[in-house]
Amino acid sequence: MGAKKVVIALGGNALQEAGTPATAEAQLEVVRKTAKYIADISDKGYEVAIAHGNGPQVGRIVLASETASSVTPAMPFDVCGAMSQGYIGYHIQQALSHELKKKGKNTPVVTLVTQVVVDKNDPGFKNPTKPIGPFYTEEEAKRIAAEKGYVMKEDAGRGWRRVVASPTPIRIVEIDSVRKLWDSTIVITVGGGGIPVIEKEDGSLEGVAAVIDKDLAAERLAEDVDADILMILTEVEKVSINFRKPNQKDLDTITVEEAEKYIEEGHFAAGSMLPKVMAAINFAKSKPGKKAIITSLYKAVDALEGRAGTVITM
Amino acid sequence: MGAKKVVIALGGNALQEAGTPATAEAQLEVVRKTAKYIADISDKGYEVAIAHGNGPQVGRIVLASETASSVTPAMPFDVCGAMSQGYIGYHIQQALSHELKKKGKNTPVVTLVTQVVVDKNDPGFKNPTKPIGPFYTEEEAKRIAAEKGYVMKEDAGRGWRRVVASPTPIRIVEIDSVRKLWDSTIVITVGGGGIPVIEKEDGSLEGVAAVIDKDLAAERLAEDVDADILMILTEVEKVSINFRKPNQKDLDTITVEEAEKYIEEGHFAAGSMLPKVMAAINFAKSKPGKKAIITSLYKAVDALEGRAGTVITM
Repeated sequence: MGAKKVVIALGGNALQEAGTPATAEAQLEVVRKTAKYIADISDKGYEVAIAHGNGPQVGRIVLASETASSVTPAMPFDVCGAMSQGYIGYHIQQALSHELKKKGKNTPVVTLVTQVVVDKNDPGFKNPTKPIGPFYTEEEAKRIAAEKGYVMKEDAGRGWRRVVASPTPIRIVEIDSVRKLWDSTIVITVGGGGIPVIEKEDGSLEGVAAVIDKDLAAERLAEDVDADILMILTEVEKVSINFRKPNQKDLDTITVEEAEKYIEEGHFAAGSMLPKVMAAINFAKSKPGKKAIITSLYKAVDALEGRAGTVITM
Repeated sequence: MGAKKVVIALGGNALQEAGTPATAEAQLEVVRKTAKYIADISDKGYEVAIAHGNGPQVGRIVLASETASSVTPAMPFDVCGAMSQGYIGYHIQQALSHELKKKGKNTPVVTLVTQVVVDKNDPGFKNPTKPIGPFYTEEEAKRIAAEKGYVMKEDAGRGWRRVVASPTPIRIVEIDSVRKLWDSTIVITVGGGGIPVIEKEDGSLEGVAAVIDKDLAAERLAEDVDADILMILTEVEKVSINFRKPNQKDLDTITVEEAEKYIEEGHFAAGSMLPKVMAAINFAKSKPGKKAIITSLYKAVDALEGRAGTVITM
């Protein structure tokens, strides 16, 4: 039996700390710390691929692009996603290579610009809910909606924003290259959930304005490379039921059946822990012997060795 | 003998047509046309990797970033380069895959986010000459120079701009991944000449504000993958001496020695044909049997088959 294959899904806090400035320099600082933990995982003999979110980063790219649109044309959302893959991937590959070198390893690390196919009939496109980019006044929002055909919605009293679909990832376009590099190379892929594209009748792909959940994209990746473990890293060490209530209970090892019951009981917040648990369930169900782990970056190695985190299996 | 290996360096006109709007949509239109010619080369049995420029694109990313800096922090130049690799690579891989599919080929096409090491003592850093980003008034320029430590220069009567170094490419950091994917996959790499990084004393890499000439980076790539042919695509079908003079002469096949003589005689414009001819000379000199071709996108297949372009050999 060879080394265990792990797909790691990095949460936003692994890239940008809450309360620090939204600069590239601050991101690089955080990524350098994150890289130490990932290098530890690789150093333990696990074969690793990395998926990551891009919410704050692509938000700022869109914001800069829209703000400057009178001097240079604003970029479409799919292109902003591609740019965020370049930006974040560059930082991770630079920082992680260095941490590996410090351990005497020359494992190559590289980012693949990655498209992910979604279904153009995905129900998400009919009722978009994912807010992206800057806030506008109601008047501006209505003008933009009329001009560009965007769907604009009021966002929790903070102003109006564009909302886009969050469709299910169907297929990773560049999966062959991920597979070819796997085991010799740490690949960074499906950044921000992947650049969302739809497949047209002539077989060509076309970018769309949508945000694919990065944990679901990482799950798709883990299945496609036949990984042993899908590791979803977030801010908490374990998944909890009755979260932040007096009877909060942290979960160690649970079955898919238990996880599904907890979802039904409404324990997990939409847009937060819910998609992570759903991705974990999908992976655990995909094939016998598969294991999903949800934990924090700091507990990642402990969790792989059974001493931390929440493990979901069949 | 296997298939011939060709590194293609795409010029700016293969990505964005002069006179068309500077939008992503307009770029994608041009890239789709470009992709047909590259698919033809692949279809003829050549193994291909693609390098490309990013001048106008990274210029616009910097412009948007600086223009919006009061609402979201401006990105450093190395990050803008990484973002341009994502942007341009995404379009090329999407368009080229489709053209290959139309020919019944499923050859994967993927973009690698690529760093290129330059020497921190490169003479370019002492006297930066490459203008990037927006134009400023003299007053603004002096304030920016004082605030950020940028070198600002007056640009041909059009205003003041930041200037950065154009150092020599030393080493492609992600070359192992290029090699691993080579021959099964069309790799897009060293976009914009690569993200320029310097190697620090502790072995870590650090992004710098610099522009690596994309033809010299493509030459480095061609040597590193032991390509047979370096093909530099530009706006003209052949290199000329006495360019645009009554005695203009287009060159068919020339030796390195002849090319060096023409350089000495001042036939080639700095920042235009000169770096292309220099890259071609470097490649032809690198190993016996190597061939460099300078031609237009439209004549690329003809040039490979000896019916067009300027060929430089030992």
